[in-house]
Amino acid sequence: MSYRAATSEYEFILNAIIGIEEASQTEKFSETTPDLVTAILGEAGRLSDNVMAPLQRGSDLEGARLENGVVRTSPGFAEGWQAISDGGWVGMSADPEYGGMGLPFSVATAVNEMMAGACLSLQLAPLMSQGQIEALEAHASDAIKDLYLPKLISGEWTGTMNLTEPQAGSDVGALTSKAEPNGDGTYAVTGQKIFISWGDNDFTENVVHLVLARLPDGVPGTKGISLFVVPKFIPNENGKPGRANDLKVVSLEHKMGLHGSPTCVMQYDGATGWLVGQEHGGMAAMFTMMNNARLGVGGQGVGTAEGAYQHALEYALERKQGRTPSGTIADHADVRRMLMEMKADIFASRAIMLANAHAIDMSHATDAGDWTSRAAFLTPITKVFGTEVGMRVAETGVQVYGGMGFIEESGAAQYSRDVRVTAIYEGTNGIQSMDLVGRKMMDGGEMAGRLLDEIEDLAETGRGANPKMTDALWNACEALRDATDWMVAHDMQDRFSGSLHYLRAFARILGGYYHLKAAQADPGGPREKLARFYMSRMLPEYTAHLAAATAGSDGVFALSLEDLAG
Amino acid sequence: MSYRAATSEYEFILNAIIGIEEASQTEKFSETTPDLVTAILGEAGRLSDNVMAPLQRGSDLEGARLENGVVRTSPGFAEGWQAISDGGWVGMSADPEYGGMGLPFSVATAVNEMMAGACLSLQLAPLMSQGQIEALEAHASDAIKDLYLPKLISGEWTGTMNLTEPQAGSDVGALTSKAEPNGDGTYAVTGQKIFISWGDNDFTENVVHLVLARLPDGVPGTKGISLFVVPKFIPNENGKPGRANDLKVVSLEHKMGLHGSPTCVMQYDGATGWLVGQEHGGMAAMFTMMNNARLGVGGQGVGTAEGAYQHALEYALERKQGRTPSGTIADHADVRRMLMEMKADIFASRAIMLANAHAIDMSHATDAGDWTSRAAFLTPITKVFGTEVGMRVAETGVQVYGGMGFIEESGAAQYSRDVRVTAIYEGTNGIQSMDLVGRKMMDGGEMAGRLLDEIEDLAETGRGANPKMTDALWNACEALRDATDWMVAHDMQDRFSGSLHYLRAFARILGGYYHLKAAQADPGGPREKLARFYMSRMLPEYTAHLAAATAGSDGVFALSLEDLAG
Repeated sequence: MSYRAATSEYEFILNAIIGIEEASQTEKFSETTPDLVTAILGEAGRLSDNVMAPLQRGSDLEGARLENGVVRTSPGFAEGWQAISDGGWVGMSADPEYGGMGLPFSVATAVNEMMAGACLSLQLAPLMSQGQIEALEAHASDAIKDLYLPKLISGEWTGTMNLTEPQAGSDVGALTSKAEPNGDGTYAVTGQKIFISWGDNDFTENVVHLVLARLPDGVPGTKGISLFVVPKFIPNENGKPGRANDLKVVSLEHKMGLHGSPTCVMQYDGATGWLVGQEHGGMAAMFTMMNNARLGVGGQGVGTAEGAYQHALEYALERKQGRTPSGTIADHADVRRMLMEMKADIFASRAIMLANAHAIDMSHATDAGDWTSRAAFLTPITKVFGTEVGMRVAETGVQVYGGMGFIEESGAAQYSRDVRVTAIYEGTNGIQSMDLVGRKMMDGGEMAGRLLDEIEDLAETGRGANPKMTDALWNACEALRDATDWMVAHDMQDRFSGSLHYLRAFARILGGYYHLKAAQADPGGPREKLARFYMSRMLPEYTAHLAAATAGSDGVFALSLEDLAG
Repeated sequence: MSYRAATSEYEFILNAIIGIEEASQTEKFSETTPDLVTAILGEAGRLSDNVMAPLQRGSDLEGARLENGVVRTSPGFAEGWQAISDGGWVGMSADPEYGGMGLPFSVATAVNEMMAGACLSLQLAPLMSQGQIEALEAHASDAIKDLYLPKLISGEWTGTMNLTEPQAGSDVGALTSKAEPNGDGTYAVTGQKIFISWGDNDFTENVVHLVLARLPDGVPGTKGISLFVVPKFIPNENGKPGRANDLKVVSLEHKMGLHGSPTCVMQYDGATGWLVGQEHGGMAAMFTMMNNARLGVGGQGVGTAEGAYQHALEYALERKQGRTPSGTIADHADVRRMLMEMKADIFASRAIMLANAHAIDMSHATDAGDWTSRAAFLTPITKVFGTEVGMRVAETGVQVYGGMGFIEESGAAQYSRDVRVTAIYEGTNGIQSMDLVGRKMMDGGEMAGRLLDEIEDLAETGRGANPKMTDALWNACEALRDATDWMVAHDMQDRFSGSLHYLRAFARILGGYYHLKAAQADPGGPREKLARFYMSRMLPEYTAHLAAATAGSDGVFALSLEDLAG
């Protein structure tokens, strides 16, 4: 089985659906010409297909191990990392001043997605570094930036993020790690952190940890948390890794999937750290990192879906059965239905993700509030919908394989095991949905309304060619508008009781929007046909989601905890 | 974490929802008193909780192995099998004449389900034997019955079913295994079979294979297939295992889950077999076995869902977070929503499954055609809905655990890995749905209509107490009636293009029916509250499913195979 990055699909979406030329017209991204984008995607595609994809299965069989306190990575990962670094892909959207490529985040997101489809566990390593680079760019002092950014961007060093503690998961504010001033401008960081993705490796000379901890005068809760950069080896005066810091990997988790990615329990015993950003301002700094990381995790879902889809299609085209035109199961109606659903959902989730990334670019390039709000609004949707599409498509991929899907040699099962964590990490999908109906609706539903206006405008102007499709989408928007009004008018308990279903409905309708755009770009062609399929068979899911979204909290809490157990 | 069989839930459904007393009033099941059912469920529950559940995790870590051609089973499985056999659970619904308990299939189904929730991979062993016992009871000669049934029922020997070959999966008719007459009434069976669950073990003195193969004069396709009983050791004149037969386990599959169940590649090299049933009548005989096995696999899904739910609830009640009444995540709206959805779906799928089993009992006890049709109609629904609920609840269980869910030590991931195969084996869920809209609608939709009449009757008579709930259900029935008419009026290609969604809609509505019955049995109580939750938030899914069900084949085949790859 082979994997081929969906290069032409990214190009189509970036150019015809999202309108990346809008970004190219800004000063910040003026060098992003169509030819450059084509070249970048082609180059990244070759790396994904030829270097990363071949590492996928081996990294599942021989996952990361901890040997005498040292992490040993999967076969070929050192070379894979080297190739990713050499290509400049770690720092592709980082500041050119520190060695980054300065590419739009939309292009970087496409590259991250294709790499996720090739080998998710390795792709997570540059994704973690990218998050750290962003956080340091936005919040660190010049001294820290000058020291760390070039190393992280070049891939000589890797970065991690350390939030979670055994009793502080989704509730980050409950963390107990401490940071005490050493009197020389540095801090002694002490505590245990869990679920640290790529907490260590055996292929870079240093690993840089961003650690959330509480200063002695930090108040309880999230407002008393500060952010520290804590390197595995303390850089000496030449910026080279010097003495080992007082930290260690205690153990690696045994996970359902993503075996190639070492998930570490980290112990900090008075490790030397440097403050990033303001005292007690750690959450704000961390959010910079997390917001884009959330989009990146959504992309992990989409990329996994792409990989799973390609494998399933290839199998369906090989598996002989019955007297059909091709003689394979690909001609069986229910198999074809599965493939169509997979393909339609990959397009929808990918378009939402790239639109989200584009909004971030425009926000950075123009400082316009609307783009910032749009980016913030789309982020939880990209994360949840992307990862749910990842899970569902990977599951369907196993189903297409039939009995072979349950056998690990087919590779279908691995997609499904690996992608499972994406719905959990970087804030569970439940937390994301609460973010959407809570924080992201503090504007009284204005951003939601603007998106719906945009969709309805397109539906109205495009009615002529496809009245059935556009009417369906327009009706969906109206229903979503009502549900949005309902959300804004209700308290958080009611909202949270329906938040995930609300988000799912929103994603379905946004997916319809981008499918309609694709249909308009390809009249009578396969994209219009796929859009029709989506609109008649998948869009209607919104009705059930909106019913659940606006049913309120009474039903959710109708049973006591004793009743639930009974 | 502990598992407790949902004994009182089975009792409630059997007595108040399904009306098992109807079966007790027949001669065949006249000994099935309420007290007996209570005693049986209690006894089986103790076995599930105390003997089987403790084997779950260990069997995942130390799965079955093949050592020098011999299968070595997981730690404790030999003792587990012994306890299952000693309790009489292998033959609980088998003919008392051969040592069976003669219990209604509804009760046996409840017991199988609870055992599945305790340890799925071990539970599959008696499930396979039960299928074989049924097939032999219905089709074998007296000589074969006298020899094999007592051994299988007592658990001294185990049984398997051998259908699949490398190039004959869902298309059983493509199989190439041969059976040649030896001239002494026996046959020489030759061929390779794959995906043979529990194809061997190290805890019984014999393993009896039911093998599909083609006689020399067998026509191509399913009509030329015959069924043979092929024991691992050929019984001698005393009925004891004698010389080794010419068959062997070639290898075990490396699977995503269900590690405790050895999935074998079997090689038959002129192995001695005896014909079961008529020459070329193998498929009919096999269907006896498969129909009830399909119901059993649906029950594996429901049982896994129960286990996953119990673990998730226990974790939610332990995991401290935030200032909520209980101080745990169980008070968070989105977590509570997940738990409610899990519980509501477990009830729905369990009730459908037990109603299906009851219909089989009534069909056996009364020979009434309506019960037979009803059982046949419900079987694919039980299989698909039960296994999809299993997958979805197990996935949600992982989500409730958050980061811990992805870590194998929590046990949440194992449910999700183990249950995955249930949507595939015994006929993939796609095949089941084709069976529903094809073979099971050869009556022109009459059986579907009778079920809908029954539901609408209940909705009408029960309207007073719960008009909102009953109206929703009644409307759903009308929509499903229309979709059923659509199915009957269209060709198979159109039907199959929407068959899985049609089945899902039917299951959702049947689930509503049983929830309404439960509400009526518990006015103002938790069952009514759960029914309200289901009816307002989960039942509405039928609209999207029916839209997809009746959209026809044009959309499904709109893209060419090249477009799909593009």
